Amino acid sequence: MRIDNGYMPVLNDEVPDDGDYDAGRRRGEFDHITPEDFTRSRGSGRVTPPGWIDENELRRVRREMPVAYVEVVPVRVDDFGRVTSIGSLLRVSDGGAVIERTLIAGRVLYHETIREAIARNVAKDLGDIALPMLPQGLTPFTVAEFFPTPGVSPYHDERQHAIALCYIVPIAGDCKPQDETLDVEWVDPRSAAFDEFLGQMSDGHDYIVRQALAWTGL
Amino acid sequence: MRIDNGYMPVLNDEVPDDGDYDAGRRRGEFDHITPEDFTRSRGSGRVTPPGWIDENELRRVRREMPVAYVEVVPVRVDDFGRVTSIGSLLRVSDGGAVIERTLIAGRVLYHETIREAIARNVAKDLGDIALPMLPQGLTPFTVAEFFPTPGVSPYHDERQHAIALCYIVPIAGDCKPQDETLDVEWVDPRSAAFDEFLGQMSDGHDYIVRQALAWTGL
Amino acid sequence: MRIDNGYMPVLNDEVPDDGDYDAGRRRGEFDHITPEDFTRSRGSGRVTPPGWIDENELRRVRREMPVAYVEVVPVRVDDFGRVTSIGSLLRVSDGGAVIERTLIAGRVLYHETIREAIARNVAKDLGDIALPMLPQGLTPFTVAEFFPTPGVSPYHDERQHAIALCYIVPIAGDCKPQDETLDVEWVDPRSAAFDEFLGQMSDGHDYIVRQALAWTGL
Amino acid sequence: MRIDNGYMPVLNDEVPDDGDYDAGRRRGEFDHITPEDFTRSRGSGRVTPPGWIDENELRRVRREMPVAYVEVVPVRVDDFGRVTSIGSLLRVSDGGAVIERTLIAGRVLYHETIREAIARNVAKDLGDIALPMLPQGLTPFTVAEFFPTPGVSPYHDERQHAIALCYIVPIAGDCKPQDETLDVEWVDPRSAAFDEFLGQMSDGHDYIVRQALAWTGL
Repeated sequence: MRIDNGYMPVLNDEVPDDGDYDAGRRRGEFDHITPEDFTRSRGSGRVTPPGWIDENELRRVRREMPVAYVEVVPVRVDDFGRVTSIGSLLRVSDGGAVIERTLIAGRVLYHETIREAIARNVAKDLGDIALPMLPQGLTPFTVAEFFPTPGVSPYHDERQHAIALCYIVPIAGDCKPQDETLDVEWVDPRSAAFDEFLGQMSDGHDYIVRQALAWTGL
Repeated sequence: MRIDNGYMPVLNDEVPDDGDYDAGRRRGEFDHITPEDFTRSRGSGRVTPPGWIDENELRRVRREMPVAYVEVVPVRVDDFGRVTSIGSLLRVSDGGAVIERTLIAGRVLYHETIREAIARNVAKDLGDIALPMLPQGLTPFTVAEFFPTPGVSPYHDERQHAIALCYIVPIAGDCKPQDETLDVEWVDPRSAAFDEFLGQMSDGHDYIVRQALAWTGL
Repeated sequence: MRIDNGYMPVLNDEVPDDGDYDAGRRRGEFDHITPEDFTRSRGSGRVTPPGWIDENELRRVRREMPVAYVEVVPVRVDDFGRVTSIGSLLRVSDGGAVIERTLIAGRVLYHETIREAIARNVAKDLGDIALPMLPQGLTPFTVAEFFPTPGVSPYHDERQHAIALCYIVPIAGDCKPQDETLDVEWVDPRSAAFDEFLGQMSDGHDYIVRQALAWTGL
Repeated sequence: MRIDNGYMPVLNDEVPDDGDYDAGRRRGEFDHITPEDFTRSRGSGRVTPPGWIDENELRRVRREMPVAYVEVVPVRVDDFGRVTSIGSLLRVSDGGAVIERTLIAGRVLYHETIREAIARNVAKDLGDIALPMLPQGLTPFTVAEFFPTPGVSPYHDERQHAIALCYIVPIAGDCKPQDETLDVEWVDPRSAAFDEFLGQMSDGHDYIVRQALAWTGL
């Protein structure tokens, strides 16, 4: 299933797509933004919404500062809170030639809370009726440090140094693949297929799933 | 509201009531119990279901070994997982003369999992349609050590040494006071009434609520 | 190395040995105990220190109530707090015919704090100059539920239902095998020998080590 | 003691001082840096070591992306791991007119691990013989979200949106005030002076200490 052309972006690129601009944001922080903020350009010749960085600048900043991420392990749970299956996304890479299996991940935007970042990224990948049950506290089950240099940690992202706060989020609703996501797949961590499932994740995302499971005691 | 007659039981007494026996248990562990188990008596002359200890023995064991408890802070949450209110029970004490404000607490029974103990105690106090969202992992936000000697820790229970694993459990459904519970009350932790609410809890339960809130970042 | 005669006690039996009585306890809780307490017998014809249950009664209570345990993963750490090796005990079983590899585990005694239980069990197994660095908080990295019935959870103890609060404890000093412990062995979790090390643990203790490592991010 | 001139920088400004350049870094990540890296200028006319951003750029990036921080509550502990006192720094603000009481905080630098950031910031503020005992895992006791807009969260930093991973770090050695730090003060959280101590912290740092204490169960 996997086609690897040597270019494998690990975490979501959070540059706004053209359609993102009007995407009905619920983020209250942007309420006090003036129209001028929305239309100013940041020297790239391209209009960028406030809180977003244009592609050129993001690329540069990624080589200068760690980038804060949230990473979500979507799960289905039974009435006792036990994890019955773990979700992942099948998606086409930016280059278009690779199909990759990933978790839900994305940058925390400027002036966005971690909870909003989790909710926004879940909705972006699973759709608006996924009904995620967000955690009551912000303590992550692990913190994954992605480095551009392989081998410094179990996690690697060639584009950047990312500090990912990792959360387990039960999904109570229905999932609809969005944008570049081809499919959302669920696997029972006690099934024979689970090892293959993990083997299809790269750059340490499989280890995030293992840590999530260890944390649940499963 | 508070009537203190000097006798204030802190944690639920888990001796079975007459009505408990047939109370439609969902606990699968009891499936392999034989009818003989259900009718045997343990020397007290009283028939006790398996996994329950009769009152005399429980009283004695409580002076000899720490007793494992679960303690639940029931909360209402918004779509972002943020706690909007905290629940408590108003109940008549065993003696009948005291009205006390408590959290949901109870022993973990023999061969019962912690998840089952949480679900059973929530159902016992809030009813069957409370729809508790149990945690995915078993790591408590704190461990409260109740000692029969006051002052050893912030927690006191004159009957026993109890080790209580404390969890925050969002309640999605409707609550109906059960048994000796007179009412279930909810309070917004950001409201002016919150300090009074905490002041009505005793023996350290208010501190458990404070720790729960600190853990949520509220 | 392993000799399995079919009888494999999982957790330490916490009945006091003859020598335990005068073992220079530091536990302040026992300060208020009268001499009478120390000499009374509990019907077994054997003198039992206060806070200890005699063997017969302990055996019976273990079939009626969950027993609270602490379980310690001893580790060596570098200056950055990273785990460099994990310790285990090689010990002769009660029966004398089995050599088993275990973590440090023991009951929480009546009126003993969890911290005291951790310190006492570390000292009991590693000696008085092990210099354990106890955790600042009591939140365990996992809670392991041992059931007498195999398969209910990843953990099994044929003698009892034990609820074990699991902690990682860095050891800064020197370790000397105590009592029935033959040796204390350390292994680097990144070494080739680690899988064999885990394979020599039974009844779920290997999984506790795995969860500890996942929690450290190693 | 407190002189407030209305300008109160909350978190350490991580622009390198002139003396920082040769400050005997232990960070292995910088080993592969070429001499060219060390001498290149980033358009500000000022030579900046690799991994550091010059002041102008840092100021701009702080308005565009959340900045990852570590925040350390330094504590003294007893043999049982219990917190006996909490440390804070008295320091002169950048403007020079304000004396502020703060925790240890600083940016995570590009390609620096969280552990290195903790160790570097502790050494920077407490000196090289403080002997901090870094945590075995990277799970923070809380995540504090500092926003430039007051009121969005309990935390405020007018310069930036900072996501601070908060850790409790026992200090085993001696502390020597460094650089702009005038003094390191310790207070027993059970003492009468503790409330005043907390009252001297601003922008939510007092709440971080309260959360740390709640997490320890104190």
